[in-house]
Amino acid sequence: MSFSELWAVVMAGGAGTRFWPLSRRGRPKQLLALTGDRSLLAASVERLAPLVPAERTLVVTGRDVVAAVRAELPRLPAANLLVEPAGRDTAACVGLASWWLYQSCPEAVMVVVPADHVIPDGAALRAALAAAAATARARGGLVTLGLLPTRAETAFGYVEIGERVGEEGGIAVHRAARFVEKPDRGRAEAMLAAGSYRWNSGMFAWGADAITTAIRRHLPALATGLDELFSAARSIGLAAALDERYAALPRTSVDFGVLEKASEVWVLPVDFAWSDVGSWPALREVVANGTGGVEIGDVTTLDAEGSVVVSDGPLVAAVGVRGLVIVATHDAVLVVPAEQAQRVREVVERLREAGRDDLL
Amino acid sequence: MSFSELWAVVMAGGAGTRFWPLSRRGRPKQLLALTGDRSLLAASVERLAPLVPAERTLVVTGRDVVAAVRAELPRLPAANLLVEPAGRDTAACVGLASWWLYQSCPEAVMVVVPADHVIPDGAALRAALAAAAATARARGGLVTLGLLPTRAETAFGYVEIGERVGEEGGIAVHRAARFVEKPDRGRAEAMLAAGSYRWNSGMFAWGADAITTAIRRHLPALATGLDELFSAARSIGLAAALDERYAALPRTSVDFGVLEKASEVWVLPVDFAWSDVGSWPALREVVANGTGGVEIGDVTTLDAEGSVVVSDGPLVAAVGVRGLVIVATHDAVLVVPAEQAQRVREVVERLREAGRDDLL
Repeated sequence: MSFSELWAVVMAGGAGTRFWPLSRRGRPKQLLALTGDRSLLAASVERLAPLVPAERTLVVTGRDVVAAVRAELPRLPAANLLVEPAGRDTAACVGLASWWLYQSCPEAVMVVVPADHVIPDGAALRAALAAAAATARARGGLVTLGLLPTRAETAFGYVEIGERVGEEGGIAVHRAARFVEKPDRGRAEAMLAAGSYRWNSGMFAWGADAITTAIRRHLPALATGLDELFSAARSIGLAAALDERYAALPRTSVDFGVLEKASEVWVLPVDFAWSDVGSWPALREVVANGTGGVEIGDVTTLDAEGSVVVSDGPLVAAVGVRGLVIVATHDAVLVVPAEQAQRVREVVERLREAGRDDLL
Repeated sequence: MSFSELWAVVMAGGAGTRFWPLSRRGRPKQLLALTGDRSLLAASVERLAPLVPAERTLVVTGRDVVAAVRAELPRLPAANLLVEPAGRDTAACVGLASWWLYQSCPEAVMVVVPADHVIPDGAALRAALAAAAATARARGGLVTLGLLPTRAETAFGYVEIGERVGEEGGIAVHRAARFVEKPDRGRAEAMLAAGSYRWNSGMFAWGADAITTAIRRHLPALATGLDELFSAARSIGLAAALDERYAALPRTSVDFGVLEKASEVWVLPVDFAWSDVGSWPALREVVANGTGGVEIGDVTTLDAEGSVVVSDGPLVAAVGVRGLVIVATHDAVLVVPAEQAQRVREVVERLREAGRDDLL
């Protein structure tokens, strides 16, 4: 493999309950077709394809969903699917992919993206990732895309943009001055007003060498665990080694565990439309219709406004509803005002307590 | 059969779309378990049972639902189920039952009740019907129960209470001064304020002789049609005769066609809790819980208020909803604010236009 080889790592390990009842244990958010006829995962991989073909795409996912992921990505080579026996957050996920890639191609550069984001303009994403990869090649270190904040969001981390050091593919390259964990409301508003802060997107580029070196320096326990895991893999195979050792790796995020501590971190400010679709109401930001609502599946509405109406089975008829989330599957229906949509967690918790595992 | 025999006629022929998606062509409102674990029909028949046993109960229903009605009423003798090939309103329904009964027992007295009303206090209903039957026996003519109006309802007919002529079983017997068809708002409010008007309940008592005589006088075309139908029944059987002739009978209500025109009509004012459950929100009047709402079936709510949440299949989770109607079946879900619940008709119409017959 040559210096120029670009790989992609798609992090598809997420679970969660925010899209219940459509999402279930065996079908988390990234496997849902929330914005069209393909799952967010399939859309994420296809969006990268003109930049990185399937043969150089690694997908990291969880054991519960591996069969579903394979079905979603029929062109992905079997060896390119790395299966986490248990989720250990993004540092372990990135570490696994990096160690895997470094073994076969230490000079490779990789772009890293989550599987569950919505980015309508694929070309803009590819241009940004190509620029990020070029930055990683030219300067070494770690590169993150900094998204233009559109609101004082308290659920995201931020990165402060430092000194401008150059440009790649028409996108400015800045030194990352500092990272800010999920802020409180006042802090988020101050950062939005300041103009020098970006949302830390969770989309990165770096050389296999640079990221493994950074993990060795800042997360030595993770590095040791990965060394042992890949050493064991040589005798018992990767799947068995993952089963034996992955769940014992330290749990932390790549942002907190590596980027915030590394000295050479570059940020490329990007402006394309983006959503992490963190909740049912967030769908309105990316696929709203003329009444500010969303209708997916077998849905009929009369005078509905600003409502998210989704069916994965039964016909849903919604009349005169305002700002409501309605989601129906063959065995469960959720109805909740958009501003209380996060309370779906309470519903899931109650079902768990009631032993309704068939619905989780 | 003796003079003292009391029969019951349960009118179970209604159709309609107001309880879609729970009600369907083959399962109209009276077959739904809207208030408990039995259908409104089964509850209606069982409510009468201490007064009139199944052997003396006639049920008149439509052909589309006859199998479902039989399943609901396993103790009803087969001959006591009269099947209308097509609905012809209540005058033909009452006429059919009356002609049938007059043939075998001309001196019988019958109480007539709809199958789709909710009356929590069965004993109060039976006492009222027993008094109505006694009035019919003692005075002849036609007897109707006059319900105490609780609101200026424009969807019901009213009866003005005239001269008090006596008492039966502790209930006053009045002459019916006059009937008022469904009034406009102002008229309804005036009648409510006047205090001398009652809701015309659709619950009656009369002798087989009195009602057949009244039909002969006031609806001669219906009487002739019924004479011919029962004459044909002697040679080809009742079912075949109904098939041949019932649909050609004139269509009118027993209130408009007979009671309003008859001279000897008595009204017994009664005060028991009653609802015709004309819509999903009306369920709140009869089975509301502590938050003014209704929950039927596999339903879980958090901070719901005044909402009607019904499931006939999937789990329904409703969070923070106010005054909402949510009804879920295995193949269709309805969500509509209570004050717009009548718009379910528009949904059904739209589905019909779209050829979604599987959902109707």
